[in-house]
This record gives sequence, C-alpha cells and structure tokens, in this order.
Amino acid sequence: MNEKNLLELMNNLSIEEKVGQLIQITPDFFDSEGEVTGPAQAWNLDKRTLYQVGSVLGTHTREQVEMIQKNYLQRSKHKIPLLFMADVIHGYEHIFPIPLALAASFDEKVVEKMAHYSAKEAADAGIHVTFSPMADHVTDARWGRVLESSGEDPRLAARLTAAYVRGYQGESLNDPNKIASCVKHFVGYGAAKGGRDYNEANLSDVELYQNYLPAFQQAIEAGAKFVMTAFQSVSGVPMTANRPLIQHVLRELLKFEGVVISDWGAVQELCAHRVAENSSEAAKLAFQAGIEIEMMSNCYHEHLEHLVSENGWEELLDQVVWRILTVKNELNLFENPYRSMNSRVQSNEYRKVNNEIALRTPVLLKNEHQVLPLKKNEKIILLGSKADSQDVLGAWSWIGKQEMAISLKQGLVDGGNDTLTFIKGTPSERLQDAEVVKAIQEADKIIVAIGETSGETGEAASKVHLRVPFEDQLWLDELHKMGKVTIAVIFAGRPLVLTDIEPKVDGLVMAWFPGSEAGHILAQLLTGDFDFSGRLPMSFPQNEGQLPLTYQQMETGRPLTQTNYQEKYLSKYLDCSNDPLYEFGFGLQYATVSWKNIQLSTNQLSDECSTRLTMTVSNDTDIQTHSIVQLYMRDEVTTVVRPMIELLDVKVVKLEPNQKVIVTFTIDKKDLQYVHADLTKQIELGKVTFFIGESSKRIVWSAPCFVG
Amino acid sequence: MNEKNLLELMNNLSIEEKVGQLIQITPDFFDSEGEVTGPAQAWNLDKRTLYQVGSVLGTHTREQVEMIQKNYLQRSKHKIPLLFMADVIHGYEHIFPIPLALAASFDEKVVEKMAHYSAKEAADAGIHVTFSPMADHVTDARWGRVLESSGEDPRLAARLTAAYVRGYQGESLNDPNKIASCVKHFVGYGAAKGGRDYNEANLSDVELYQNYLPAFQQAIEAGAKFVMTAFQSVSGVPMTANRPLIQHVLRELLKFEGVVISDWGAVQELCAHRVAENSSEAAKLAFQAGIEIEMMSNCYHEHLEHLVSENGWEELLDQVVWRILTVKNELNLFENPYRSMNSRVQSNEYRKVNNEIALRTPVLLKNEHQVLPLKKNEKIILLGSKADSQDVLGAWSWIGKQEMAISLKQGLVDGGNDTLTFIKGTPSERLQDAEVVKAIQEADKIIVAIGETSGETGEAASKVHLRVPFEDQLWLDELHKMGKVTIAVIFAGRPLVLTDIEPKVDGLVMAWFPGSEAGHILAQLLTGDFDFSGRLPMSFPQNEGQLPLTYQQMETGRPLTQTNYQEKYLSKYLDCSNDPLYEFGFGLQYATVSWKNIQLSTNQLSDECSTRLTMTVSNDTDIQTHSIVQLYMRDEVTTVVRPMIELLDVKVVKLEPNQKVIVTFTIDKKDLQYVHADLTKQIELGKVTFFIGESSKRIVWSAPCFVG
Repeated sequence: MNEKNLLELMNNLSIEEKVGQLIQITPDFFDSEGEVTGPAQAWNLDKRTLYQVGSVLGTHTREQVEMIQKNYLQRSKHKIPLLFMADVIHGYEHIFPIPLALAASFDEKVVEKMAHYSAKEAADAGIHVTFSPMADHVTDARWGRVLESSGEDPRLAARLTAAYVRGYQGESLNDPNKIASCVKHFVGYGAAKGGRDYNEANLSDVELYQNYLPAFQQAIEAGAKFVMTAFQSVSGVPMTANRPLIQHVLRELLKFEGVVISDWGAVQELCAHRVAENSSEAAKLAFQAGIEIEMMSNCYHEHLEHLVSENGWEELLDQVVWRILTVKNELNLFENPYRSMNSRVQSNEYRKVNNEIALRTPVLLKNEHQVLPLKKNEKIILLGSKADSQDVLGAWSWIGKQEMAISLKQGLVDGGNDTLTFIKGTPSERLQDAEVVKAIQEADKIIVAIGETSGETGEAASKVHLRVPFEDQLWLDELHKMGKVTIAVIFAGRPLVLTDIEPKVDGLVMAWFPGSEAGHILAQLLTGDFDFSGRLPMSFPQNEGQLPLTYQQMETGRPLTQTNYQEKYLSKYLDCSNDPLYEFGFGLQYATVSWKNIQLSTNQLSDECSTRLTMTVSNDTDIQTHSIVQLYMRDEVTTVVRPMIELLDVKVVKLEPNQKVIVTFTIDKKDLQYVHADLTKQIELGKVTFFIGESSKRIVWSAPCFVG
Repeated sequence: MNEKNLLELMNNLSIEEKVGQLIQITPDFFDSEGEVTGPAQAWNLDKRTLYQVGSVLGTHTREQVEMIQKNYLQRSKHKIPLLFMADVIHGYEHIFPIPLALAASFDEKVVEKMAHYSAKEAADAGIHVTFSPMADHVTDARWGRVLESSGEDPRLAARLTAAYVRGYQGESLNDPNKIASCVKHFVGYGAAKGGRDYNEANLSDVELYQNYLPAFQQAIEAGAKFVMTAFQSVSGVPMTANRPLIQHVLRELLKFEGVVISDWGAVQELCAHRVAENSSEAAKLAFQAGIEIEMMSNCYHEHLEHLVSENGWEELLDQVVWRILTVKNELNLFENPYRSMNSRVQSNEYRKVNNEIALRTPVLLKNEHQVLPLKKNEKIILLGSKADSQDVLGAWSWIGKQEMAISLKQGLVDGGNDTLTFIKGTPSERLQDAEVVKAIQEADKIIVAIGETSGETGEAASKVHLRVPFEDQLWLDELHKMGKVTIAVIFAGRPLVLTDIEPKVDGLVMAWFPGSEAGHILAQLLTGDFDFSGRLPMSFPQNEGQLPLTYQQMETGRPLTQTNYQEKYLSKYLDCSNDPLYEFGFGLQYATVSWKNIQLSTNQLSDECSTRLTMTVSNDTDIQTHSIVQLYMRDEVTTVVRPMIELLDVKVVKLEPNQKVIVTFTIDKKDLQYVHADLTKQIELGKVTFFIGESSKRIVWSAPCFVG
C-alpha cells in the first residue's frame, strides 16, 4: 500500500480502533467460528473490540494463522491484517542449537544461516515477526536465560546479534521467506541481581553504555523492526515504565524507529512492581514511557482510549499506530495477508543445514592422551542420564518435536558404531548388577552423557547450584574409582561448575543443547568425522561463589598476577583463584594448527592510518578443521577503568587438510573507542597492546601499538 | 591557637612545607635519633622534607608517639605537631566484639559505649584519630570486610555509624580522652563485584543515594572530622580519582567540611588501575579529585609542589592545609602536642565494660527442646577447632593481645563449670580413640565450637565458600550419627552458610568474634546467667549462589509469595528459595516476652501530624532480658521500586524479671522519604503499611496508614 493510502486508512480509525492496534493477544482469544472465547470475555473484549486488535502471538500452525486471519478480516471494519508474532528462537519446527551454543561457533555466518532457515520455516507457518534475537549482556550463569544469549563478550555478542537480524529479515520484508526481528530485552535483563530471573538490575550508566547497549545498537543498525522491553527494573524503574531509557537511550541515542513492545503481561505487572496502583496507572506509565504494543495484559484495552482523550495524546497515538501500520505494510500484509509461499523447504534440507550448523557448536574442553576421537573397534559403553535422552532441544523449542530429536545413543548407532554398549539407568541401580560391572570393566572407554534438563534452562530457570545431578556425578565418581577411561558429554544451557568433574574424566565435551540433530553431530565429532571448533562464549566458573564472572576483569589497584599470589592485600579470594575453570574463548580440536609470522603493518595508529595484523594459519594435519583466531587488546592507560583484556576481533578460518592461509585483521583507530565517564565514546591516545590468543587466557603473541 | 595565629602560621609555610602536611607515613620513617631511615630514603625524604610531613599512622605505644613527636618538634621549622592516626576499629588494647557483632546488639548505646572506651584507651596511647567507623553498605558475605560493617540495613547501619562518631569524639576534641573519627570508605567499597575485595563496584545513582550514602551522611552530621576514600573504582572511576563523587556528593550534597584522606597507598594505585601513567599523573588526578592527605604512597611528596605551581593551585592547597591545621588545632595539639592524660583507665574497668558490651552481641539461632541454657550437673563435652582457641578477637585487633584473650574453654572453667570435659584435636584423630568415643557417648550435651580464623576475616579476606572447615563439619556429622545432643558455637566475621549444620544440631549460637572476653561472656550466655539478645544484622544465606543477598528484596513484576511457589514464571530459583537460612533481625532468647496492645495513634500521617505506635512489652519470666522491637514498613505504591519490607526503627528494651514496659515509636511523615529517580528524597503520598516484627520475616502485627 502506498503511504498516502496507509495514512488515509489510519485517519479513518477511531481512537478506540487505533488503540486496538496496540493490543496483542494469544490465539485462544479466537475460535474457529469467529465467536468471543473465554479469554476474550475475561478481558471484556466483545466482537467489536476483539476484531480491532492489532496482533497475535504464539500460533502453532499455518492453518491456525489462516483461520484467525480469515475470520478477522471478514469481521474487522477496516480490514487491517493481524500481525502474527512468535518465539522463534533457535528454529521453528527444526530446532537448531541454542543461541549460547551458536555463539560458541564465534561465527556470524553460522548464526545468520540459522536465522535464515528459521525465518523460512516460520514464515511458511504464517509467522511475521520473531521475538529474537536476545541482545542481553550476560555475566551470570545462574540466570537461565543465558541460554538465549550470545555470550559474555559485548563485541562478539553485538556482532552475532546483528547476524540474527540479517538472517531473519534479509534484504526486504517483502520477501515472503523473511520475517521481522524483534530484538529483546531492552535493557539490563541479564543483570538480574543474584542471577534470579525478573529480579532488579542496578547498572551504572558507564556499564550500561559500554556493555549493555552495543548489541542493541548493532541489531538496530541491522534494521530490526521491533524492540521488546525487559521485565525487570533498571535502577529502580521497571523497563515497562522507563521513559528515560526508552526515549532518551533507545529512541534518541540508538536511533530506533521501529515498534516498541512490552514483554508478556509486563504492563499489568507494573502493579506487582508497586509503581502503579491499578491497571489504569499501569497503562498510563507504560504509554508515557513509550510502550507501543502491550503484550498479553489488558491495561491498554481497558484504559488507553480514555487516557488518550484525557491527556491530549492523540498525536502521540497516531505516531504509534503509524509505526505499527508501517511494519504491516513493509511485510506486504495489505496486499497479501497470508504471505503465502509454496516453496516449503524439505525436511532433509533442514536436517543437512542443521547438521552443518550444529557441528560448529560443541566445545572440546579436555582430551587427555587423545582419548578422542573414538577409534574403530574400541569397546565403548554409553551411560548417564542424557545417554539416550531426546531432551536435547533446550528451552524455547515449543514447536520442535522432541520425539523426532536424535539422542546421543541414536546418533552413535546411526553412525555405525556397532561395538557400542548402552547401559540404561542410574549408578545406584545398575552398579548392583555384576554383569554391568563386568561390562564396564571390560570396556575400553566409557562415554558418560550427563547434564541439565531443558526445563532447568531458559526463562524462569535460575539456579544457585550449577553442578550436574547427583546420579550423574556418581557415575563419574564410581568410574573414576574403577580406573576407567571416561569421556563426559555435558548437555546444558549455561556454564556449569565442572570443578568436581574435570579431574575424573579423560575427555570432556560441552554439547550444550545441540537441537534436533544432537546425536548425529555429536557422533561425528566424537568419532573424528568432523573436527571440534567451538569456543566457550562464557566463562565456566570454578565455583558458584565467583559469580557474576566474565573474562573482562577490570583492573584494580591491587591486581593479582601470576607471581604475587602469596601476598595478602590483593584483589583475590582466599579459597579460590580469580580465574574461571575454563575461560572465555577456550576450546580444543583434533587438528594441529599453527599460527606464525604474526605481525603488525605498523605500530602507529592514527585517524589516517589503520594497522593490519597479518599471520599465517597452517593446518599441520590432514584433518579438515576451523581455526578460531582471537584478537584481543588492552588499552594501557585510560580515563575510565578498563578490562585487563578484551576481545577486539575474531576470524573463523576454515582449513582443508594441510592448508595454509594468510589471515588479516584490519584495526582502525575508531575500533578502540570506549565509553568515558561522560558517556560519550572516545578514543584514548597512547599505548595499547594487541594480543593473539587461543582463548582469553592462552595468549600466543602480543605487541604494543601507539595511538596518535 | 586562635584562628588569626593559625592563619599566620599557614601563611608562613612554603608550598613545599604545605605539601608536607598532606603526607602521611608510618613510624618506621623515623628513628629514635631523628635520623632518616630506610623507608624514608626510599621515598627520597631527606631530613628537611621528613620533618615537614603532617601525619603518622599506626604507632604501637604512647612512648613511640612521644619519641616521634619530640624528635619532630625539635627538628621541624614551624613546629606544627604531627597528627597520629591508627586503626582503632573495635578497641585498642582491650578488644571488643567486631563491629558486625556490635551491630547485632541493634543498640546505638552499646556501640557508643564501645567507641567511648576505645577512644579513651587509644588517646592514652597517643592516638589522635581513628580510621573508624566503616560506613560501607554491605550485602555480600563473601567480602571479608563485612566484619567491620554495621550490617545490611541502611537505616540501622547509619544510626550505629553515627553512634561510633559520637563515642569517639564526644562533645569536643579538646577533651584529651577523645579522638577524631575518620569515617570510611567513601564510597561503594562493599559493592565489590563478586564480593572480591578491591574489585570494581558499579552502582546506579539511585542505589548509591538510597543505600550507600545514609551512613556517611549521619556520620558527617555527627561531626566526623575525616573521610577516607575507598580503594576501588565506582562506575569506572577509582574513588581516589573520583572528583564527581568527592566534590559533588561528599562536599556539596553531604556538606562534609573535614579532611579527605586516601586509603593506604591508593594514590599510587591509580597506576595499577591504569588511569594514571605515572605517579605524577596519579598525584594530579588525586589532588584534583579532592584527596587531601595521601596515605603511604609518595606521589604528593614527589610531584605536588610542582603541580601546584604549574596549575596555579596555591589557593586550593591553602584550603586543604587549612582544614588539616584546623583539625590539629581542634585536637588542641598546638597547646599540647602530647595530649597527655594521666587518668589511665584500669584494665578491670575495661574488662567489666567489655563484658557488658559483648554480652549483647551473640545471637541464639536455634534452641530445640531448650537445650540451652546448660544445666548444673550436666555432663558437658567441649570440642571443635575453636573450643580452646584464643583466636577470638577477629581482624583489626593489632594492638590487642591474643594471648590475653579468654577462650571458650577458659570461660567455662572460670565460670565454675566443673563437670566440663574438653576434647582436643580433630575428629579424624580423636574418634579413633575408644575412650574419647565412650566419653562422648556418656555426655549429656556436646558443645562444638567451630568457625573461621581471624585471618579469614576482614580486609583482603574474600571467600567463595562460606562453610565451616571440613574437620568442624565432620565433628557435627559424626556426633549427629551418634545421636548426641549438640550445641554449635560459631566464631566468624561474616554470615556463614550453615545449611548443612543447622539440621544436625540442637542449639546454635552465632558468637562472631567476641573480643578479649569471649569465653567469659559465652559462658554466661550458655549457662543462662545472662540472656541472649543479639539479632542478625545480616542475612545468612542458604547457599553462596544466592549472593549478594539482603532482606530488602525489591519488588519484582513476578513476585514469589507463600502460596504461588508451584508456578513457574516467578522471580525465584529452581533449586533454592529466595529466603535466607536465617533472616535479618532474627535471634532467640531464654525469656518469654510478649508484645501486646500494639496500636497506632492515628492511621493518617501528614506534615502536621505524626503518628505514635505504642505497645506493651512484658517479660513473662523471671529472667532479666532485652527485647528488640523492630518496626518495619512497606510503601505500597511508589515511584521507584522499593523493598517488600524495610526497617524503619528499632527499640531496645531492657526488661527486669516480670517487668512490663510501654514502648512508643513516633513516626513522622518525613521518615518515609526515599530516593526518587531524580535523586531527591521525597515522600510518597498514599498508603503505607507498618509492621512490628521479631525479625524481618517473623511479623506479628501490621496496620495500614495513609500519608497525605
């Protein structure tokens, strides 16, 4: 529809009809006959007002979307198509690895491809908008939603967040294979105190600007059409009522021009927060703050029409409605409310793509005496709570079918591992059985598949203990006593505390939740058909008492160094080092890759002159692999305290057997800017140090550079 | 000295001499002959510059002070007496309970008396200023310096902090029994990330103003002459260089007119923080920020004279020197540089006062089947790592003599418990001994004295595990298996995680570090000669994974309540409740005290009209005791999210046997103000609820009140 007609359409709407566009409900508000359902009645929606609402979230099938849209358009006066939104987080029906696992690829191409295929499948099911990506900065593994994050590094996370948006939205939303992206949760949700979901966040402005905004900024620059506000309060003001952060930061600073939507029920929850006395006040606070679509509470429906008249907000309301209609128009809904596409992608293509993607996400954490890859004819036993579990999808896989997912056992069997013995049950039960004990004694290697359930991850899944379950730990303890060679494969949606496990195993694989193809890709990795290349996107703490934790430890006045540990008055713990058990960026692989001839083109950086870091990356084996080259930096003297080390850039280098590749990083002076006390981004003149690392701790090269 | 003469004196000083007043060094810079020592040489202090410095910290004896002062005044050109400062934290030679224990009295009179006697003893040893009280807001038991705090509640802590200042300073510093108070550490030190000492703190302005400033404000209003800045960075800027917080907040907002001193070495540490490239830059940043005395680093000595000339800071320097000279004058040092007092208090008076004070600090946490008090003729066994330990003073007791401290065993013996059997050693050793096992089997009750060492507490003593040592836990496990009646007495400088201990004991006493008289006061409490009245000033977590933790949990949009625990989407943990194991304000006692007829004089509060809460407090037993009546509030609808409950006031009521007392709280409208988003303190109109509680959780009465 052209702009003129769209404007005319808007101008024909009454205030009540305009308010309708701001309301988002679930499919159960509609029945197949166009009648008013129980949920709609509970909200005092009658036929007229029900057929004025603007959007629906959480449909399950294309047929459901078509039915709702058809009934709606028949009954609605102005025939403005409904917008259908859904949580398409890591795949729709075909479930890819969880976002935290995708981040372990360190590869924006992997993420973009996942989002591209997710969008296709979701679009085909009638979805127009996904509530993804999650751009929240995370440093606390207790918080279950780290599963949805792109890890703890603000630069890497921002880059990956933008890749999601590109993957979902493509070049134009006119393309029926594409869906709009709603980046969430603005802002500070990951800073929930004590890692407890929905809990208050208190942020200094400097950390907000430095660590929490960049991923939103890049998502917005990539064109994200929606931003969802966070549930919790930031510095005392719930985000749903946080006018300064929405208006000043999101709109003015980040230049967001799309639609702002609340999280589920969050407008009404202003009453639970006790900043609103009733739903009318809640509506007023939220609308004033800049919440444009109210998701699943009925404060706007009940009160906004009245509030608009009372406060003279007609023009403001028009701005909001215009943004919503504009997105609908960009999605081509006026021309084709069903956005039909007949090019349904075949499942086997999805499985293939999912395999390609998922292979890049597990992280090999330990491989003593090259216990991996498994060798032909070795007697392998597979056991543990996750050994034959199809609970491999992780949270936010509601359309995905767990019963279609490939367990590790299935994957190993499908991969032709015919010497595999599977032991079902817990050690408390099974180690009573002499035959089981005998089988274990005779085995060459034991794979112990253990970890969290999906239900322990994601939203509202905060935990204070980050250990594997008791029976899983018991398997490891008992096998260790028996002197067996063991490989632990860990399924989890967060960094776990593996301190008790690590010494008891020879091999350790962080599988995350790998998605529908879990068993297949793990079998390929365990047997060496494909090389590991995942790197940890979050630090794995030694102990829960270290949390929150990130590799970006800030410089203190009394730094702990490698040599001064015996001194007392240092910034350290008495009973635990400051380090994580496994650090950000860490991961092993089968191939031996060497990094040589690392050099800077110049060690003088200026406005006119960038520097190039070049290096030769050689695969010294005949194993195809990926090398994840991590460029870190330290700004040596700063105005505001900066981390001891921070990631500046990363290159993912695919290497054929024995291939040699020249890798180049270009470093511009502007890349070195950071947030100063006045909240502007500035570049410090003076010395910086660049580092090339196999992780944030395993530094192989460093050089100074002078910024003028 | 009158002001005119003082001004004349100052005007006679050269810039170099003025800078000298800003330098603080340790006694080892001076030798008895007035020669330059090694430490002084290392700082390039020659005879001239050494005898220009303004202050000394950390002398051990009166004789040392006199010697240094005498040599100094002989050699110094202008004869400006040295100021002697020291860490007199909870007593000087006679060590009182640690500040966190004093806070458990909930009684400002107890704190003030302690400070009064500390001051007397320190003054007699030539000390003019103590680096106390610590006003830092604390919510993280991992941080060792919670030992020095007044607990987690901002209102209670502020009140107690002011009591220290009154106790130290009295009516006038002219009184030679009094010393000046240096309140520390401005600001945010307790917010060290991960509870790791010296680590960065990031605070929102709202929480800074609401929770971190009040104790400083009350200390300043009580007349504190010095403020020490904190080591760490706040929101990216080290406090030693934090001009906005020192100038805008401390000087303008809190109206502090005294002297600002750095913490030990903190000016030089600006280089370690990497915000200064060298000591000249460090001096410049610190001086610009408002650091007036540099403690134990030599940036000012090396560079400030030059910086003053270069930057035209002469007037600024004069202001600083004037403040320092003014304090020296207030202390009467020009008239009497030795401030001699011949009224040395007798040790037995100190022991008596210390007993009175310390009896008020232990907290009885569990008393199943009235296992306490111990009864005459019961066969009691005492064991555990702290059973006969003199390590009962806690950190910051450097002048106190551990060898003079009374262990629990000694205290019980001194108290005449002649049926006591003491078992020395660890369970791993001693439970091999059949006689020991027999003795245990035959005992009526076992007292297990366990906990932390002093070295595990205080500065630079952060820990990630907050459990008792392995062997102590083992005693409890073994005794529990043997079915014994046990009483654990815990010595610690912080809240510990007692989750594993609690179910295994019948009695549980939190002794903290009770100071020199430890054993005596514990014996009196355990045998019922004196009733327990301590209340927890910090929450005791169930698990380290809950930290940071305070009873002032902020309202969320999805609150966990007593009835909705089964629901998923709540602000909670999956594996632990939100509650602490023992909550703020909790403590048991022997006497039965009833609170009756609780009523408000009016439930309408206005500018003109305050309300009075009255209640009858009755001791229903013939045991002398104290009742700690806690008045809490909740502001029902607020502009900024507020806690579910917060302490408003507390009354400590001493009760003779069977005595009945009417207790009155007066509540003014202005008491209800809190920090709004614009950082002003405002009062919300509307409903508040008042609560009377035995703790922050055990609420016995509530009533609404309307603020108009």
